[in-house]
Amino acid sequence: MAKIKAGVLGATGAVGQRFIEGLRGHPWFELTSLAASDRSAGKKYREAAKWRLESELPDEFADMTVVRVDPKEVDADIVFSALPSDEAKKVEAEFAAAGFVVASNTATNRMVPDVPLLIPECNPDHIELIKIQKERRGWEGYITTNPNCTTIMFALTLKPLMQFGIESVHVASMQAVSGAGYEGVPSMAILDNIIPYIAGEEEKVETEAQKILGRFDGERIVPADFTVSASCHRVPVMDGHTEAVWVRMKDDPTPAEVRQAFLDFNPGLDDLPTSPRKAIIVRDEPDRPQPRLDRNAGRGMSVSVGRIRPGIRYICMGHNTIRGAAGASILNAELLHKKGLL
Amino acid sequence: MAKIKAGVLGATGAVGQRFIEGLRGHPWFELTSLAASDRSAGKKYREAAKWRLESELPDEFADMTVVRVDPKEVDADIVFSALPSDEAKKVEAEFAAAGFVVASNTATNRMVPDVPLLIPECNPDHIELIKIQKERRGWEGYITTNPNCTTIMFALTLKPLMQFGIESVHVASMQAVSGAGYEGVPSMAILDNIIPYIAGEEEKVETEAQKILGRFDGERIVPADFTVSASCHRVPVMDGHTEAVWVRMKDDPTPAEVRQAFLDFNPGLDDLPTSPRKAIIVRDEPDRPQPRLDRNAGRGMSVSVGRIRPGIRYICMGHNTIRGAAGASILNAELLHKKGLL
Amino acid sequence: MAKIKAGVLGATGAVGQRFIEGLRGHPWFELTSLAASDRSAGKKYREAAKWRLESELPDEFADMTVVRVDPKEVDADIVFSALPSDEAKKVEAEFAAAGFVVASNTATNRMVPDVPLLIPECNPDHIELIKIQKERRGWEGYITTNPNCTTIMFALTLKPLMQFGIESVHVASMQAVSGAGYEGVPSMAILDNIIPYIAGEEEKVETEAQKILGRFDGERIVPADFTVSASCHRVPVMDGHTEAVWVRMKDDPTPAEVRQAFLDFNPGLDDLPTSPRKAIIVRDEPDRPQPRLDRNAGRGMSVSVGRIRPGIRYICMGHNTIRGAAGASILNAELLHKKGLL
Amino acid sequence: MAKIKAGVLGATGAVGQRFIEGLRGHPWFELTSLAASDRSAGKKYREAAKWRLESELPDEFADMTVVRVDPKEVDADIVFSALPSDEAKKVEAEFAAAGFVVASNTATNRMVPDVPLLIPECNPDHIELIKIQKERRGWEGYITTNPNCTTIMFALTLKPLMQFGIESVHVASMQAVSGAGYEGVPSMAILDNIIPYIAGEEEKVETEAQKILGRFDGERIVPADFTVSASCHRVPVMDGHTEAVWVRMKDDPTPAEVRQAFLDFNPGLDDLPTSPRKAIIVRDEPDRPQPRLDRNAGRGMSVSVGRIRPGIRYICMGHNTIRGAAGASILNAELLHKKGLL
Repeated sequence: MAKIKAGVLGATGAVGQRFIEGLRGHPWFELTSLAASDRSAGKKYREAAKWRLESELPDEFADMTVVRVDPKEVDADIVFSALPSDEAKKVEAEFAAAGFVVASNTATNRMVPDVPLLIPECNPDHIELIKIQKERRGWEGYITTNPNCTTIMFALTLKPLMQFGIESVHVASMQAVSGAGYEGVPSMAILDNIIPYIAGEEEKVETEAQKILGRFDGERIVPADFTVSASCHRVPVMDGHTEAVWVRMKDDPTPAEVRQAFLDFNPGLDDLPTSPRKAIIVRDEPDRPQPRLDRNAGRGMSVSVGRIRPGIRYICMGHNTIRGAAGASILNAELLHKKGLL
Repeated sequence: MAKIKAGVLGATGAVGQRFIEGLRGHPWFELTSLAASDRSAGKKYREAAKWRLESELPDEFADMTVVRVDPKEVDADIVFSALPSDEAKKVEAEFAAAGFVVASNTATNRMVPDVPLLIPECNPDHIELIKIQKERRGWEGYITTNPNCTTIMFALTLKPLMQFGIESVHVASMQAVSGAGYEGVPSMAILDNIIPYIAGEEEKVETEAQKILGRFDGERIVPADFTVSASCHRVPVMDGHTEAVWVRMKDDPTPAEVRQAFLDFNPGLDDLPTSPRKAIIVRDEPDRPQPRLDRNAGRGMSVSVGRIRPGIRYICMGHNTIRGAAGASILNAELLHKKGLL
Repeated sequence: MAKIKAGVLGATGAVGQRFIEGLRGHPWFELTSLAASDRSAGKKYREAAKWRLESELPDEFADMTVVRVDPKEVDADIVFSALPSDEAKKVEAEFAAAGFVVASNTATNRMVPDVPLLIPECNPDHIELIKIQKERRGWEGYITTNPNCTTIMFALTLKPLMQFGIESVHVASMQAVSGAGYEGVPSMAILDNIIPYIAGEEEKVETEAQKILGRFDGERIVPADFTVSASCHRVPVMDGHTEAVWVRMKDDPTPAEVRQAFLDFNPGLDDLPTSPRKAIIVRDEPDRPQPRLDRNAGRGMSVSVGRIRPGIRYICMGHNTIRGAAGASILNAELLHKKGLL
Repeated sequence: MAKIKAGVLGATGAVGQRFIEGLRGHPWFELTSLAASDRSAGKKYREAAKWRLESELPDEFADMTVVRVDPKEVDADIVFSALPSDEAKKVEAEFAAAGFVVASNTATNRMVPDVPLLIPECNPDHIELIKIQKERRGWEGYITTNPNCTTIMFALTLKPLMQFGIESVHVASMQAVSGAGYEGVPSMAILDNIIPYIAGEEEKVETEAQKILGRFDGERIVPADFTVSASCHRVPVMDGHTEAVWVRMKDDPTPAEVRQAFLDFNPGLDDLPTSPRKAIIVRDEPDRPQPRLDRNAGRGMSVSVGRIRPGIRYICMGHNTIRGAAGASILNAELLHKKGLL
């Protein structure tokens, strides 16, 4: 069977490189196009980008010529977008209008009413918005998005807790530097330090989960009825966002009941190639999860939880540039393909 | 005027060294005795301990002979205790019985009903417990304590908020490695990592603030009527505990009102030598306080706050081995002297 | 074909865990015995040791009962030793006397004249010492050793340079914290810091390479005729020893000739299961090798070199607990098996 | 006595901020002008620059209006230059031509024959070049420079060793991230890592020391007759360059003789306000100097040495943005003033 042709928009940055890594050897998708800024276009990828990951960049990609971020230059069925937010606003719509499926990791379109904000384990039915989006916009293609890297970790863990009647969530994040892109956090800013602020982050974190865990009523998403209050912090960790979460629930479950709900959680996505064996891994050791030890669990696609205490309080942690970015978009694309939308 | 003679119990450890640093050149206290384990006793301090601080160890202390942790060997009016909790239980009582004033940084006696748990800016009147303690125990001396290093940061910031009717507190701490002592956190455990667990810490944090902010009714402390829920995390930072705090208050003050309450806070301790000019420093930059930049504010004795947002949410940060340990005990001792109790 | 039974002495420590990881699924060896201190003996491994590696500990090993470091309790053909040096002195001889093959990562026996100090890529013929050792000692088994983790990186790169007539070597090492064991380097010692001293390290580094690159004359090893001058430093890196090396050579080769010698180096060990495809990887980027990016090359068994400049100067880097410790011993064992000595 | 008016060129960057810090409260100099790029000019300093140092920025400087880097806009007798090298080439000459004394931390003019490359402890007589420079150029003002931050540490320690007949120097540096400027080293590049390359650094290090320790023959500097071979590495340390140094000397002194030479070194600069009590501090502990513990010795102006071993090998360490940059320029200016050249 012929593979689906995939392009990456913003291919030279930190998330762009994770897209390339994630698509390498993918059973369904074939990386056919690398698009980046005008400064990079026309160069071979190996000249346009400095490869920053531990894995080696395969020659087949290193030798690809980078094209401009332009629907006319990109040869693909689906494009994965790692563009900056301001640029994405215009460009993603152009690609969708031109017939591409756009799977975006960018914030721009996440909260737009007719754009699905997907976590396949949480709200696969939200893909119903796509039909509405295409009709309303008159587009041949369409846009889907995945959440912010901090949202995705705790939002995934909230899914199995919805049964208990979530009323409010407090979350304090300890976020890895890779979340800001390669040049995002100077070492002078973060060595032996904490920065208790990430521009725009708390606003995203406080609105996205309700859309994700909301209900599609046939026309729109009715947001879930809980509040989120976030405090976001940058820490000297390379990869892996760690989050301290408090969840108040109407049914007041015990820690044991919450733990069991996590263990029982089975989103039924085993037929998606990059879906981890366990979306949520429960760690029973007193001091886990830890980013250095647990971020690569499920090839970076699992969220690990631990320290489930009365409150209910717990810790969740996941790989921010895989589960929280490139891997999230790819998993969304796999869902779209399975559902016949790609 | 003759200075008050001061000894340090547990003088070789990380907090013990901060005691020595804090007492060097102190206008009221004179360091006369360094006590440590039997293994160290009899040696010169420079041989018994490896000095770990950036400041140089003065020769006069380096050449002192370490004595055993025994009231008969220690020549002092007041002893500052940095003993391990289990050892402190028996020893601190022995010293108090023998007529010493014991200013302890150890957890053992903090929650004992007739022992004051002091922050001079918060509850100076709790020293009234001393009389009760001495009578009840039949001691010539007495024990006072300072809070856990995580408690002290947010508890100090709660004091000016008491007027708004505090109902509940959520706190997520990002704690420096020095809080665990010199050998406490292996580098292999914390480089590029977060450990979301500190044994026993959350329990302390969840009980101490209510005692500190409680009311002395003439016989005992009636704890303040709010709940604290804590999540404590170790981060790769040398010194300075950063805390994300949520405070729910009956009067529902605005962030501006909370900020003003912090600015207006004046505990009136200017006559104590190590009292900082401002106990609480308000930082208005969006990304402060940060441990590397702010931990030494007020010579390590100020607590810096920032990011006061609706919720009420804010960040507080202070130096854990100065304001949170040795400096706290010394400030307590200064209060005791000023009140004629030393 | 039945696998060779392998035990690990000192199985609970940092190198012991790397041995377990390296032997898991090994095609020739089967892990049959985990030995550790009396404190651990009798417990299941999962209770005796806290697993510190990112990989999961397989249940089959987690449930093994730890035995004492005693030839009578260990069921194995070969034992891999990660014992402390002082303990190893007596114990390794006991095991060899009792008929075990001992592949040791410990310093104790490295410079003993009749004990081979092996790097299979450098001196496979030194296994001829084994016969001499067994005869002299009257042992049924025997001891082989691998070099110190710092020695091994540059010694391997010296092998292809021997043809140019090495006269002297200067090496400045920047060593990862894992080299000191899990509790070896407190975070308070190394965060935002360099420690320009590692006890005993320079002495090892300055003598081992000459033995490794020496000539077996039928009876003994005649050390190679060059000097090594080392300066060893601990840096805040988790894994991977980086070394700045200067090599003065009689033939005064150009950097291009040195580079070619590295590229041409082929030790012919492709039939050993853990031998990397390339023992020496030449990186031509100006800023490589780097420990975080290159330490896992060749599953941690390759040494990466770069920045080959006139002098001759270059950088070499390898994984200190794999190529520099457990992996080195296992590769030695594979060589022994291939040569019919196991 | 009226103070000398001092300006800073490139006042907003990392070294610029260290200049401001170093000039604050200086007994001889008064900071009168802050110059920076056109983007910053016209703004108040507090708006143009984000203050990155632990010390507070005094209001008097925060409220100064930044001017352009233009002799007509800068009101000063001396300007301290922290400009980028390419920009400095043209600009520093313009300032000197316009009558300013230029004390530059920039590389551009260091190796220009008629420009003194000064370390007051090493070559104060090189200021004789100034007369030659002024005549040759027809300038009213003049340019002096201080060495590269890596050169300065070991060059200072070579001065007292000149008596032994230095033949060659090998130096491996472990350089702090602050040496690259605030945005210079991304955290993703250096956390848990070493970068064994700093562009252009080795070339500077290999030529500057010979000029500094050269002899002024009445017309020019005759470079000292030794070779330097450097390998430069970036490490995850905030401030403080640590260097492993090998010095081959004709007289082959013992470590004890070298140590004594360091102890005896007295450059006689006690009348310069920022000259440290000891230019070279000898540490006899086996594991010192360390950047975190020793970088602020002598208010950042001392170079600490230790581990003096046969070879001769030793470690030297100093604060790279104080002794290695801003503080070096200020000490040069103090020398110029004392000599009547300012």
